[in-house]
Amino acid sequence: MPEAVELDLILIGFGHVGRRFVRLLDERRDALRAEAGTIARVVGVATARHGCAFDPAGLDATAAAARVEGGGSLADLSPAPPAGALDLIARARASARPSVVVETTVLDVRAGQPAIDHVRAAIAAGAHVVTANKGPAAFAYHDLAAAARAAGVAFLFEGAVMDGIPIFNLVRETMPLVRIEGFRGVINTTTNQILAGLERGEAFDTVLARMQAAGIAEADPSLDLNGWDAAAKTAALANVLMDARLTPHAIQRTGIGPAIAAPAKAALARGRRLKLVASAERRAGTVAGRVEPIELPAGDVLAGLDGPANALVLKTDLLGEVTIVQGAGDLTQTAYALVSDLVAVRRRLGAPPPASGRRTP
Amino acid sequence: MPEAVELDLILIGFGHVGRRFVRLLDERRDALRAEAGTIARVVGVATARHGCAFDPAGLDATAAAARVEGGGSLADLSPAPPAGALDLIARARASARPSVVVETTVLDVRAGQPAIDHVRAAIAAGAHVVTANKGPAAFAYHDLAAAARAAGVAFLFEGAVMDGIPIFNLVRETMPLVRIEGFRGVINTTTNQILAGLERGEAFDTVLARMQAAGIAEADPSLDLNGWDAAAKTAALANVLMDARLTPHAIQRTGIGPAIAAPAKAALARGRRLKLVASAERRAGTVAGRVEPIELPAGDVLAGLDGPANALVLKTDLLGEVTIVQGAGDLTQTAYALVSDLVAVRRRLGAPPPASGRRTP
Repeated sequence: MPEAVELDLILIGFGHVGRRFVRLLDERRDALRAEAGTIARVVGVATARHGCAFDPAGLDATAAAARVEGGGSLADLSPAPPAGALDLIARARASARPSVVVETTVLDVRAGQPAIDHVRAAIAAGAHVVTANKGPAAFAYHDLAAAARAAGVAFLFEGAVMDGIPIFNLVRETMPLVRIEGFRGVINTTTNQILAGLERGEAFDTVLARMQAAGIAEADPSLDLNGWDAAAKTAALANVLMDARLTPHAIQRTGIGPAIAAPAKAALARGRRLKLVASAERRAGTVAGRVEPIELPAGDVLAGLDGPANALVLKTDLLGEVTIVQGAGDLTQTAYALVSDLVAVRRRLGAPPPASGRRTP
Repeated sequence: MPEAVELDLILIGFGHVGRRFVRLLDERRDALRAEAGTIARVVGVATARHGCAFDPAGLDATAAAARVEGGGSLADLSPAPPAGALDLIARARASARPSVVVETTVLDVRAGQPAIDHVRAAIAAGAHVVTANKGPAAFAYHDLAAAARAAGVAFLFEGAVMDGIPIFNLVRETMPLVRIEGFRGVINTTTNQILAGLERGEAFDTVLARMQAAGIAEADPSLDLNGWDAAAKTAALANVLMDARLTPHAIQRTGIGPAIAAPAKAALARGRRLKLVASAERRAGTVAGRVEPIELPAGDVLAGLDGPANALVLKTDLLGEVTIVQGAGDLTQTAYALVSDLVAVRRRLGAPPPASGRRTP
């Protein structure tokens, strides 16, 4: 069994993802220690509307989650509650143990904020940072990665694309020396489900309303429909996997609306599928990214994706095309992305356990 | 840039894969040092028919490859050439640097030999071992992994299934704490190409002869056709990913022959595809593995695989179904599997570089 490393966790944001994360840590506490050599203890929580708490001796995070869900405040959980997220992050500096800031705030996806400020503050405080937000990698990857390197801390964001399905960790950990020449994927679930509904002859508004009722589509679905969500993910992927310097604004973007119903049905009648495809390619020494509806032949792996499925096709020099497919996403997967990043942080803190197949001893 | 760790490589087997491996190391020498912190030097080569060589100061491996391809012998490359593979492996013990045995011999796939003996000897000599052979993981995974743990060395075999596409490294490195409940896949290229030819109305012998001429199918294709190759891979996957104790003999196995043409064409006529599917599932406290032709609906990711493509669907507890698809395999990918395992060995030898997105500093 690898020696256990204690990590102090500071949660910035405590919504659905943050609360599922602390419960998942609880459910997998023994495995986290036995397989990954990690003891994770929540010492701080910052929320926007339910107060903040900080206790270097550890907080009962699942009790805090229940309190927030009951509409209560965290302010009386600790003697000197932090004034807010940045105040809480600054307290990471005082810990003798490695600190990890877990960032899950609601994103202003047009600016990447406040996630970027939180990541920058965490790195400045000497904390590792893991986030489920795509903003930091989409808008400021190279700056933040350079700052993290200089500070000797990790900056990880597996949950930014396709939830907990390994994408960034896949390339970094298992495809050393491989050059990513480009990619294409279906990485926005709302638009994929809408297109599937339109193919079946449903009305745009009907499908959208059903998805909103099921909690899949946002109350304001415009960021999904106009391709912005996919563009932000495309920028993050291009920046990290292809060393591009893009923001979502640089992605050539075409979304979908009710008028897409006719071409979607026509494609299906020809045995083909219309999908909102995100892609990037190297062109004239730079990287160009696009999001647009594309009609795909039936044999294309992206054409076969059911409504809830996502997939990313990586075009590589040494391995040809490598595709990873997510059957369906859920909250647990997003929370798991944070856990897998946490294990990656642990691995860089000490000699990793012997590499022998599946389970570490 | 991570500090470079020098690794002494001992090549056991020097056929197409072994020779492509040394050339790939040469082609990526700078990246291997800059990105992975590794300087790899071949100090020994053992062949079955072209002699052996050992020089602690390093051999010119690409020159040795050219010599073997010209029909020459390696016996005069070093002053006291080893008598054979096991003699060469034993010399690893004398090195002050970490040694890695790179095992690529021709496999007796019904017994897993001589690869298993080579792996065992390498571990006993205190060397890490990477192999492209499926035999060791299919027949003796738990024994060898336990021996490797006790000796503090790595035992890796990414190339055993789907060439260089990360499977074992995917689960071990990027899916910590995830439990693999089962899997199903198309993992034998010869049978997949034959089935595709039969669907098009070609005769069994015609497709097979074309594939043999192209070097895709073996001169004796029986191990592919009767499902044995897929069964060995299934045992390896089940042993490593699901902690099973199987050998290929325990896999319930149905292969394909000329009689499969009619059901393959009939399936296609119904808009479905017949594929040779390898699978495993947990059942009554144990793991059961199967290889058999199965008719799949058009929407199934395995149904969409073109002849040269392979794919594996992992059924997991936390991430639902995760599928990885290989577009097509080639010799470079198999050689790359050994390189990626070599980098995994390097990572366990020292503090890994900071984890920040794609490229390590």
